[in-house]
This record gives sequence, structure tokens and C-alpha cells, in this order.
Amino acid sequence: MTNLSIAIPDSCLIESQTILDKSYKISQISRSCSIFCVNKIIIYHDSSVKAENMDKKILKTILEYLDTPPYLRKKIYPKMWILKHAGILPPIKSPHHKALIDIKKIRNQEIRFGFVVKQNDSLYVDVGLEKLIKYKGNQLGKKVLVKITNNAQLLAEDISKENVDGYWGYDVQFADSLSALLENTESEVLMTSVEGSQFTRHVNDFMSKIKASKNLLVVFGGPKFGLRKILECESKKISSSNNFMNMFPMQGTQTVRFEEAILGTLSIINNYLHA
Amino acid sequence: MTNLSIAIPDSCLIESQTILDKSYKISQISRSCSIFCVNKIIIYHDSSVKAENMDKKILKTILEYLDTPPYLRKKIYPKMWILKHAGILPPIKSPHHKALIDIKKIRNQEIRFGFVVKQNDSLYVDVGLEKLIKYKGNQLGKKVLVKITNNAQLLAEDISKENVDGYWGYDVQFADSLSALLENTESEVLMTSVEGSQFTRHVNDFMSKIKASKNLLVVFGGPKFGLRKILECESKKISSSNNFMNMFPMQGTQTVRFEEAILGTLSIINNYLHA
Repeated sequence: MTNLSIAIPDSCLIESQTILDKSYKISQISRSCSIFCVNKIIIYHDSSVKAENMDKKILKTILEYLDTPPYLRKKIYPKMWILKHAGILPPIKSPHHKALIDIKKIRNQEIRFGFVVKQNDSLYVDVGLEKLIKYKGNQLGKKVLVKITNNAQLLAEDISKENVDGYWGYDVQFADSLSALLENTESEVLMTSVEGSQFTRHVNDFMSKIKASKNLLVVFGGPKFGLRKILECESKKISSSNNFMNMFPMQGTQTVRFEEAILGTLSIINNYLHA
Repeated sequence: MTNLSIAIPDSCLIESQTILDKSYKISQISRSCSIFCVNKIIIYHDSSVKAENMDKKILKTILEYLDTPPYLRKKIYPKMWILKHAGILPPIKSPHHKALIDIKKIRNQEIRFGFVVKQNDSLYVDVGLEKLIKYKGNQLGKKVLVKITNNAQLLAEDISKENVDGYWGYDVQFADSLSALLENTESEVLMTSVEGSQFTRHVNDFMSKIKASKNLLVVFGGPKFGLRKILECESKKISSSNNFMNMFPMQGTQTVRFEEAILGTLSIINNYLHA
């Protein structure tokens, strides 16, 4: 399994004027990442345009909200204006968005996302069932991934996504700049741009590199400027090791929109990753 | 160049309640078709669900409206409630959506879409410039593709898309049923379904067939039921010649939405068509 991450600029909502428009756009990003089992979304600072500072917070909050299993959303997120329209966005329905089941039917070693609460000086985790489960850990007030063991009593302990099979949603992080992100990543990088070389001409070489690295970071430019310009504003250039590629050869429209580029690019990549 | 068509069910708006929601969904379909130079969109009748009859008309009208060059839209489309939100949808900006230019700068043999009008018993075509151009043809009141020749006087005559290089937008047609559509097509058919075989396992064979046929029809199921069920409701089965394929192996969400399937599938296909 390839560990797939994407990087998007903090300017990506710049063309959306209202919180409703922004919510819909973020929902499309979230769905694309969930469909194609993206593990990490990195929001990098784009200094080529002046985007609203609040957009970063809106992006991260709604992306994380949509990735959160519905049974935990009300517990983790207080009423906040950013989430005003989050309720009407299309659901993700990833495997970690589990249903309510009878607590007696819980399997030994079952994995669930939960939220850690304190009761009578003990920590418990709410995993969306009728009862809280005793929690052996120290992340009070946090969203946690737990393994539930059933030895006479149910007990939940922290487990890391890397140690569990299957797809468990994405994490969201910030990066200070595109060049810092590129310097610090250990992944093979795919930079998408209409100015890039045609992907299909390089796909065999590229896929061999991915098979060796097992980590792929796909980087997208912004609605206003592409990756070359964003790097130029950081006094950097595209490096030949960065796989600067055009995923939409012979496009019949002047531009491919940001959210279209994400879904389209990940569709193509997914197809090769599972070939 | 492969001649690319897609077929979508007339039930594809069934989950959208308002004309605003429907408009946005149709806009996404229109953009996907324009990005990937789809020549024909066939709306087939889906008898597996009971969709609103009006949806067919909404689909065709908004799809055709969005494909129409902006300079002709007000002339061709009267005020109608179906197009209430069409003005706020993202633009297509295909090459045939040409800009206003000084009529003196029009090149000999230039191709434009126009709208045929009558003045003083003569036919003229409005091609979005300051003046009407004399029209040698008989399609009064119709949207036409014309070649403009400049021999002392400008003269426009009909030309067919097939006889012009480049992408000139899509046409929209209806089909009575999915099985009728499949029986009558001369194209190589790709039927997309989560139940299908993994596309990447068959892509080489499939692409050889496309190269021979030069015509590809990509068929999509509906938001409620997939292609197998829709055919069953017509007492038909998937045939082995129909290339019944899954384009989204290992998907991390329960479903891939209709509009996502179109953009994702066409991204993959386009990538191979231009390899």
C-alpha cells in the first residue's frame, strides 16, 4: 500500500466569497481525499496571493469535521459559525464512520474512533455506543483511535493508524511554505500543473519510483497561480526531481478548477497504484 | 482523435431537491464533458426509479445553455425559470466560447457559432460581433456553426463540426432506454460500475479496441441504481462485449457520487487516449 498525501495552498478558497461556497468546495476536497484513501492533507502557505487569513482555519476545521465519524461530531465540535453549513454537506461514509451497534456485539480487538472524557476521576472513551468504555491512556478531551479489548470488562487503549489495516481517514497539517514542504518531505513528489510534462509519457518511470518509496505526495497549485509561480514567490524553482506533470492533456477548457484537479488527478493516480 | 460520447440516466438529478442544486450538479457534468472534449451527451431513460419528468428537460436545457458561447446565450434563451441560477454557474471557457473582436479583424475562413435572424427578407447570422453577417443557409432561428469567408463582403455558411479541427462543444440527445442505446451504438462501449472488473487489468485490450473503433461511449448508472440493475429493469443483462468496469478500485468511501464518477472516469480515459 502506498502512503498517499496531498498538499494544497491556503489560498485555495480565494474564489469563494461565502462560508456556504467555501463549505461546498471543502466538501469536494474531503470527498476526493476519502475516496482515494489519502492519509494526510497538508495546507501550505501560498505567498503569491493575499488570501483571507481565516480561510486556513475554515479549511482545517471543515476538513477535520467531515473526516470525523458522525457519532462523534456533536461531542467534539461546539456550535461554531464555521460549521454553519457543515450539516448539509454530502456524507463521506468511510469505513471508520461506523454505525451504532449494541455494545454486547462489539468484537474483541475492534477499532473505533472515540472522544476521551472524565467521570468520577476516571477516563472513559465515547466510541458512539450507548455506554462509555474504560480508557487506558491520557488524551483527555481529544479524539483518539482506540482498540477495544474484551476481557471480562471492555477496555480501550490508544492505537496508531499505522498499526491498523484499512483506511482510517486523513490528518490535516500546515506547512509554512511550499519550498519548506518540498525540502522536508521524504515522499516521492508529484507536482501537478498545466505547464508540466504530460504525465502519461513518464508514468512508468514515475510508478517505479513510487513502488520504491511507498510514499507519494501530490502537490496542487492555487486557483490564481500554479506551482511554478508560487515557488517563484519564494525565490525557488521547480526541480527536476519534483515530477512536474500535466494530468489533463488536451484539455477542452481554459482552466481545470482546483477541486476538479484534485478529483481527476487522484482518480488517475489511484488507477495506477492499484494496477 | 477518438470521438468521445457519454450516456447518463434521466434519473441523475433524483437526489437534488431544488433547481439550484440541480443547476450545480448539471454544471459539474457540463464542465467534465468540456474539459475532456466530449462530443455527445446522451440522456437515456432509466426505468429503475421514478424520477421527475421535468428533470430531463432541465438537464438538456442547462447542459445546452452552458455549452452555448456566452455571446449567444441571451439571444437564444428567453427568460425561463429553468435557467434562474444558470448565470452564477462556473464558466466553461471552451475554445468555441470566443471573445468579442473588431469585425475588421475577423480572419478569412474563421469558424464561429451564431444565431440565424431575418432582416429585410434576408437571413443574417449573429456571431457575437458588432454587426450581423450575411448568411447563406436556411436555419432561421437556429444556433448554427458557420464558416465566415471574406471576399469583398463577409459571408457565413453552415459547416459541420466534423469538418473543423479542434473541439466545438457537445450535443445533447435523448435515448428511450439503456438497452436501445446499447443496441444502436456503433461505438466501443465502456460501462462503469463498482461491480465491474478492475479497469487497469483490462486497459491494454480495451485501448486497442478504442484505437480500432475510434468511437468510445462511456455509460454511467444512476445515483440510486447501477447499470446492472437498470438493464435488469429492461429485462436485459450486461453483455461481455460491454466492457463492464470499475474505475475506482479500493475506494475509501461507500459510494462514488454520480458527478464524481464522471469527472474521475473521464480523467482516467483522457489520460490513456492521449498517451
